[in-house]
Amino acid sequence: MGEILVIGSIAIDCVETPFGANEEQLGGSATYFSLAASLFAEVNLVGVIGKDFPQQHIEPFRKRNVNLSGLEVREGKTFRWKGKYFEDLNKRETLDLQLNVFSAFTPNIPDNLKNPDIVFLANIDPELQADLINQIDSYSLIAADTMDHWIVSKREALLKLLGKIDILILNDEEAKMLAEEQNVLLAGEKLLAGGLKAVIIKKGEHGALLVHKETIFTLPTYPVKSVVDPTGAGDTFAGGCLGYLAQNKSFGLKEMKEAVAYGVVMGSFCVERFGIERLMELGPQDVEGRLRALRDAMSF
Amino acid sequence: MGEILVIGSIAIDCVETPFGANEEQLGGSATYFSLAASLFAEVNLVGVIGKDFPQQHIEPFRKRNVNLSGLEVREGKTFRWKGKYFEDLNKRETLDLQLNVFSAFTPNIPDNLKNPDIVFLANIDPELQADLINQIDSYSLIAADTMDHWIVSKREALLKLLGKIDILILNDEEAKMLAEEQNVLLAGEKLLAGGLKAVIIKKGEHGALLVHKETIFTLPTYPVKSVVDPTGAGDTFAGGCLGYLAQNKSFGLKEMKEAVAYGVVMGSFCVERFGIERLMELGPQDVEGRLRALRDAMSF
Repeated sequence: MGEILVIGSIAIDCVETPFGANEEQLGGSATYFSLAASLFAEVNLVGVIGKDFPQQHIEPFRKRNVNLSGLEVREGKTFRWKGKYFEDLNKRETLDLQLNVFSAFTPNIPDNLKNPDIVFLANIDPELQADLINQIDSYSLIAADTMDHWIVSKREALLKLLGKIDILILNDEEAKMLAEEQNVLLAGEKLLAGGLKAVIIKKGEHGALLVHKETIFTLPTYPVKSVVDPTGAGDTFAGGCLGYLAQNKSFGLKEMKEAVAYGVVMGSFCVERFGIERLMELGPQDVEGRLRALRDAMSF
Repeated sequence: MGEILVIGSIAIDCVETPFGANEEQLGGSATYFSLAASLFAEVNLVGVIGKDFPQQHIEPFRKRNVNLSGLEVREGKTFRWKGKYFEDLNKRETLDLQLNVFSAFTPNIPDNLKNPDIVFLANIDPELQADLINQIDSYSLIAADTMDHWIVSKREALLKLLGKIDILILNDEEAKMLAEEQNVLLAGEKLLAGGLKAVIIKKGEHGALLVHKETIFTLPTYPVKSVVDPTGAGDTFAGGCLGYLAQNKSFGLKEMKEAVAYGVVMGSFCVERFGIERLMELGPQDVEGRLRALRDAMSF
């Protein structure tokens, strides 16, 4: 089993969707990523929480054996996000955002975590992402996510980062925005040209694309009838994807394609209940079962 | 080889996209449908044009042996549509719409066309669609398309129509609107419950869904890098889909899935050039080649 190092946010979310509301749910990119990836590999998390962080939110990480030795507890409050999803779940509004201890997040990676197989730099400042890469002694693969905010405000730093990572994982709108190209395939190829091994483009309910030197690979999502809360699905996707790669310690085209399929599968679970609820119910057999179901649903 | 009867519009379009503009291009739902379906089966078209219809626009039908004996030529002008697509090609604006002779389109199906294998009722008034079904003597399968305009203005007639057809082909937004259900799968199942054999949901660049009593089948689209003009892609999809079914004269789940794949393939060709240009270049070997490429692009 391979080892993953993830650096990202841990948050407390208040989420409202047409199917109800859930207060004080455990969230953050590193959370969703870890709880998905830990079904496949050993996960070490580097992040920060405030002293207000409720003990019960530590439990899910414990259950999944996520190593929290790199989790800093600081004076102050934990990152908080409050959002509302509309009837069309693709649309959401941020009602409140308090970075709190996350605003001064300048992580030092503990020495014993500096030699992972895979590094996932979740959506944080690209300058911080670059600094984190410098802290790592050895690795086999580095992947990073980003968001519209950084594409606008730190474009140059982000483009520079592409030369230092192997896989960029981002959604379709972000890919178009970063590449300044409306066609999502051309956007992927333009980003790839910077020297990446692959660009993985998340399309939410529409599946995912792998843009790779050798080919383009496309998958629909697994058809989910009960979508309750889309929060965290993208990071859960990344967790399934990189978790699978870490499990196999092999990064050829075949494994990349399979990894994207596991990403799709994990994302499709995530949305079925609020927050991390669905993820915490899963075992490897559920994941394998849904992968087979995805294959069935698209075979002809 | 099976026989298809299609009833729908023939139009002259002026289209502007970020990649250029094309004036006076042959368009209309029955046009795109016929030129796609005729690669698979015999197509008989019932429609109406005005006396202004340019002779050169008859040529594409001739080339594809589309039977135009049911095409009425009336005093007046042909249906005209002028539209503009934005940078995001999913967004378009209608700049001008002149129904002209199409506004009084009350087709009489010629007797020799009243026994087709498959009927396709393209997007027209659902009351007219119902009337057309009554005119037909025998058939194996009837499919119909619709649009937001009819869902709003003729909802009852449309719901009643569902009891008289076998397959409803429509896009995702229309399916949600007609079913009054935000989840596209649930929308499909709700529509299916009216007694349909299948609901085929077109998702444009995101592929298609087949909602069938026995299963749900999902496909991404074939990844196209050069999307020039999306006009007619939905009707081209329907043409590939029903053309394939007519060719096989077999409507089991296996054939339905394959039909959706041919629909996706034909739609992916359509968008590559303006209007019907790309469709007119195709032969069966191109279609088979892209079907294989689609399988490759999604196999893992």
